Amino acid sequence: MNLGKVVGTIVASQKDDKLTGTKLQIVRQLELDGSETGAFVIAIDAVGAGEGEVVLYASGSSARQTAVTKDRPADAVIMAIVDSIEVGGKLLYEK
Amino acid sequence: MNLGKVVGTIVASQKDDKLTGTKLQIVRQLELDGSETGAFVIAIDAVGAGEGEVVLYASGSSARQTAVTKDRPADAVIMAIVDSIEVGGKLLYEK
Amino acid sequence: MNLGKVVGTIVASQKDDKLTGTKLQIVRQLELDGSETGAFVIAIDAVGAGEGEVVLYASGSSARQTAVTKDRPADAVIMAIVDSIEVGGKLLYEK
Amino acid sequence: MNLGKVVGTIVASQKDDKLTGTKLQIVRQLELDGSETGAFVIAIDAVGAGEGEVVLYASGSSARQTAVTKDRPADAVIMAIVDSIEVGGKLLYEK
Amino acid sequence: MNLGKVVGTIVASQKDDKLTGTKLQIVRQLELDGSETGAFVIAIDAVGAGEGEVVLYASGSSARQTAVTKDRPADAVIMAIVDSIEVGGKLLYEK
Repeated sequence: MNLGKVVGTIVASQKDDKLTGTKLQIVRQLELDGSETGAFVIAIDAVGAGEGEVVLYASGSSARQTAVTKDRPADAVIMAIVDSIEVGGKLLYEK
Repeated sequence: MNLGKVVGTIVASQKDDKLTGTKLQIVRQLELDGSETGAFVIAIDAVGAGEGEVVLYASGSSARQTAVTKDRPADAVIMAIVDSIEVGGKLLYEK
Repeated sequence: MNLGKVVGTIVASQKDDKLTGTKLQIVRQLELDGSETGAFVIAIDAVGAGEGEVVLYASGSSARQTAVTKDRPADAVIMAIVDSIEVGGKLLYEK
Repeated sequence: MNLGKVVGTIVASQKDDKLTGTKLQIVRQLELDGSETGAFVIAIDAVGAGEGEVVLYASGSSARQTAVTKDRPADAVIMAIVDSIEVGGKLLYEK
Repeated sequence: MNLGKVVGTIVASQKDDKLTGTKLQIVRQLELDGSETGAFVIAIDAVGAGEGEVVLYASGSSARQTAVTKDRPADAVIMAIVDSIEVGGKLLYEK
């Protein structure tokens, strides 16, 4: 999984039937220190993450393993909201 | 998923049988501000996107989860046409 | 899918049983203007592409969705020979 | 698979149900000489790796092939703890 | 598939049960001219490749399509030993 931050939302009314009712979040990929990399991904939200929250997202076929994304044409899912990040015994992030 | 813009079309009469009847669109990957990255992908269109439209495309096995792409040798599908992009409460794009 | 050009062949007599009878083509990835990127991939040919031909190739699990590649340990397949590429109403390539 | 070193842990209480009871490790990707690349991944631990240990991790759908990760929305798994790395007859690393 | 050269071995006694009995080879990715790229991968050997041999390896779910790797948490497999590489009618490599 990758570390990301929810920064926005995409609205798309004309979409594949299987995507009806999903929430499309824009997730910027983060470094461990919380700084943003240039990369971003559009992910379906399976955990109710809000804008500004630090999250984990899974990619590829694994993104279809939640109840929300099963059998859907989605290659990225937000599957956890991060409480804390600890590296080398040091707390880098706490919600 | 990734953000892209349909910029063209590929015609291929000699192709695997399973691709018969599909529309092959050229999709340039976009940044959130709408500028084009250097990357592009050839994707099957599952939503009737026209040239110039801003779309979402899914990659990998997830690209085979639409009615149009099921069981086909396709690793990218346009599965949504973008209405709007909002980042940090600011509307970055509106169709 | 990605755009490529068949530039050569690989012969491998000692290989997994499931690869018997497949043709291993060397495919250089192309830009839309036909110039070669530095990247290349070894793909199984499902459409009878010859050297120098511009093709589309699919990667990952989607590469196993042709009759030629089904259940084989192959992560890339040539699944179409390109007739023409049109971008912004301009014909960039014609076979 | 890729070579990595466990450098920390992520705690996420609000997550997809299928992730309950998994341990989320932060794994920095390593070069063969043991130096760290800039890349990292969050992986589920299937072998009880501790901080500082050199490990192998698998990505994509293969990450769901352990008893710990089966059917879970996880795209990376630590599936081995490295005892030794030998390149060109030279021992580069020994636990 | 990608072109690589077996350059070493990894020993890991503590690993997921499904990996028992597999051989973990270190494979450096090669350019077509035989020079090494900086990239490498750890792959399960399905064809008995020895150190120094030029091989093909498959990645992702396709890596699980050999008898040796079926249902295992492995995302890379050596599935062929290269006899020769021919580009543009010129023999670039012969075993």
